[in-house]
Amino acid sequence: MCQSCNDTFQTLTRDGESRRNFLRSGAALAAAPLAASVATQAAAQEAGASLEASEVQAWAAFDTDGSFAPHTIPRRAAGPKDVVVEIMYSSICHSDIHTYKGDWGMPQFPLVPGHEMVGRVVGIGAEVTKFREGDIAGVGTMVDSCGTCANCLADREQNCLNGTTFTYNSEDKISGGVTYGGYSKKIVVKEDFALRIPPGVDLAGFAPLLCAGITTFSPINHWDLQPGQRYGVIGMGGLGHLAVKLAAAKGAEVVVFTTSEDKIADAKAFGAAEAYLWSDEAAMRSQMGSFDLMLSTVPVAYPMQQFLNLLKLDKTLVNVGALFPIEGAHGMMMGFGRQSLAGSMTGGIAETQRVIDFAAHHGVAATYEMITPEQIGEACEKVVNKQARYRYVIDMTQA
Amino acid sequence: MCQSCNDTFQTLTRDGESRRNFLRSGAALAAAPLAASVATQAAAQEAGASLEASEVQAWAAFDTDGSFAPHTIPRRAAGPKDVVVEIMYSSICHSDIHTYKGDWGMPQFPLVPGHEMVGRVVGIGAEVTKFREGDIAGVGTMVDSCGTCANCLADREQNCLNGTTFTYNSEDKISGGVTYGGYSKKIVVKEDFALRIPPGVDLAGFAPLLCAGITTFSPINHWDLQPGQRYGVIGMGGLGHLAVKLAAAKGAEVVVFTTSEDKIADAKAFGAAEAYLWSDEAAMRSQMGSFDLMLSTVPVAYPMQQFLNLLKLDKTLVNVGALFPIEGAHGMMMGFGRQSLAGSMTGGIAETQRVIDFAAHHGVAATYEMITPEQIGEACEKVVNKQARYRYVIDMTQA
Repeated sequence: MCQSCNDTFQTLTRDGESRRNFLRSGAALAAAPLAASVATQAAAQEAGASLEASEVQAWAAFDTDGSFAPHTIPRRAAGPKDVVVEIMYSSICHSDIHTYKGDWGMPQFPLVPGHEMVGRVVGIGAEVTKFREGDIAGVGTMVDSCGTCANCLADREQNCLNGTTFTYNSEDKISGGVTYGGYSKKIVVKEDFALRIPPGVDLAGFAPLLCAGITTFSPINHWDLQPGQRYGVIGMGGLGHLAVKLAAAKGAEVVVFTTSEDKIADAKAFGAAEAYLWSDEAAMRSQMGSFDLMLSTVPVAYPMQQFLNLLKLDKTLVNVGALFPIEGAHGMMMGFGRQSLAGSMTGGIAETQRVIDFAAHHGVAATYEMITPEQIGEACEKVVNKQARYRYVIDMTQA
Repeated sequence: MCQSCNDTFQTLTRDGESRRNFLRSGAALAAAPLAASVATQAAAQEAGASLEASEVQAWAAFDTDGSFAPHTIPRRAAGPKDVVVEIMYSSICHSDIHTYKGDWGMPQFPLVPGHEMVGRVVGIGAEVTKFREGDIAGVGTMVDSCGTCANCLADREQNCLNGTTFTYNSEDKISGGVTYGGYSKKIVVKEDFALRIPPGVDLAGFAPLLCAGITTFSPINHWDLQPGQRYGVIGMGGLGHLAVKLAAAKGAEVVVFTTSEDKIADAKAFGAAEAYLWSDEAAMRSQMGSFDLMLSTVPVAYPMQQFLNLLKLDKTLVNVGALFPIEGAHGMMMGFGRQSLAGSMTGGIAETQRVIDFAAHHGVAATYEMITPEQIGEACEKVVNKQARYRYVIDMTQA
């Protein structure tokens, strides 16, 4: 098992914890992926050095109704700095759903979503230094940027002044046309936009780190959440459950606000100190002015002042979920406490590597249900209906 | 002139600048107040030591229609730590108008607004140490707080955990009933809530510092605006014009966004490097992503994303004007640039003293038109119609 395990793997585990424990903890709810990765590895080695352009099996949305169907997409020949990744696990982000529904403007159909994927490197360009064949790589929300502008030089590729190329439904400046995401069997990507994944972790549980993980990790870095500080997480779906796990691993006192009663127990299992329903007025009152930082992961607009009121003076509520006009924030009430409402979204490649390393070190991974590509449409519906517990991961190893 | 001038006055002027220049610069558009203060001083000395409870001439709104009429209000007997201030100049803040109109809930009528006032100390309690009779004092937005809670101890009396007493339309915990503000001839106030005003400055022009001044000064402290940084000021009325003067005095590169064409030239006269109309689309585009900090002083809700777009990455737009539900801030757009929308409102007593000292040192005062108490209603209408240039100051010395 894990013949391609790199030598530094042991250093990623927690001090004093055996590798066996680490693997068990990393594997979280599913042991299957590790076994699967062995089989995939053999296939990968067989596929091996192929750097040629190819036609790749994918699953696409053809319109806004959310039914998916098989579709073939082109992947470019790998350039000298490209890696070819055979995708093993690709998870469903709510953004995928917003995109095919046209919530953020009409996408280009056929649309192949997916910006949370983990797979095996099956080909490397001549100048690639970051990977060798057989390594595990992740690809997140973006696949290219200019690399030379002030923002790229500051590790903010997502803010590239010459235009970031996002992983899907984005202008493909290398191959022309539009980019296709991770609901597919293979991707060719610049090595600079591929993340190194420790091979012994729960690979399927790590896929969601590539978007949900970095999106919820970045705010606790930027707003400098400290151990012992009170951190409120509003909404506990794909993003929220990782927010809880990551902040708890950081030693924060995490409090979850959910609308789903059955998530209360899960929140505590994920490391939250407390968890409440929004409708619990007494609990909401008791939390007034008590938080050092809050994170809103709810994927729709909703009245936010009720949570801004829970912040201490001068503190910030970071919105990573409601990518729509803000609702219900009140100028006077924010003014009295000098509170801020901030936006945040994904992170640069270096910071994404950091969340992967942090998660590996602390034994954090997403909690997920594995599905087949044929179940994508149904899973998306469940995401919208708040039925996901907590991420759907598409198993490409069997597809 | 200025017999009561305290010995430290000279140290408040800019290095190398004569006191004459300082006085001229401080006097801005009106020399009259200085002359008036001489006459008032004589009257004050006559009124002298009276610490008795009294009936005081005031001007009150009796309903939401904005017509004012003379009204007599009680002022308490001065306690040992109280000062009695004969009000000389009281300016009109847009908050006064929002309050009598019931925009923030129905006020208690008769309502005597006014939380920007400057006057002469005509009586001091036995334990007062901060003032002597004849000194000039200012009173701002609040007149009492517990003084012992964590926020009071942190110089955040406006956030008193036991309830701040605001200057008008607030529960009066000392005398009972409701507080009455500065549209009146006299106020009795705890010395802790009275500010020391240098006697040689433009006293009428300093009245607006007690609310508009601290409200626009506090954000540049808290968000640490540095000399040379680009600072956008949205809306240039009573608050906005002081924001420009204060930030320019701090050495920032101030850019004004106004809806009134005739304010463009004024903005530059006040120290702005650039000034644009909101409707100037080319100018708005050219400012994208260029600001280190922005301040919105517009007193109504309006679509804010157009200005959030002008911030650099990670920067903040501080709203001090629109004390209503926020409009038009967009989660996704804020997220891409990790921008924040913050509330802010007034400041503590220590910080209010700081803006007064800063303004005196830099020769900053409000630009205003003097009115009589009989003109209050008409002036309020002009404020709403954006006709104020830039504050109306009620001359109580002649009333």
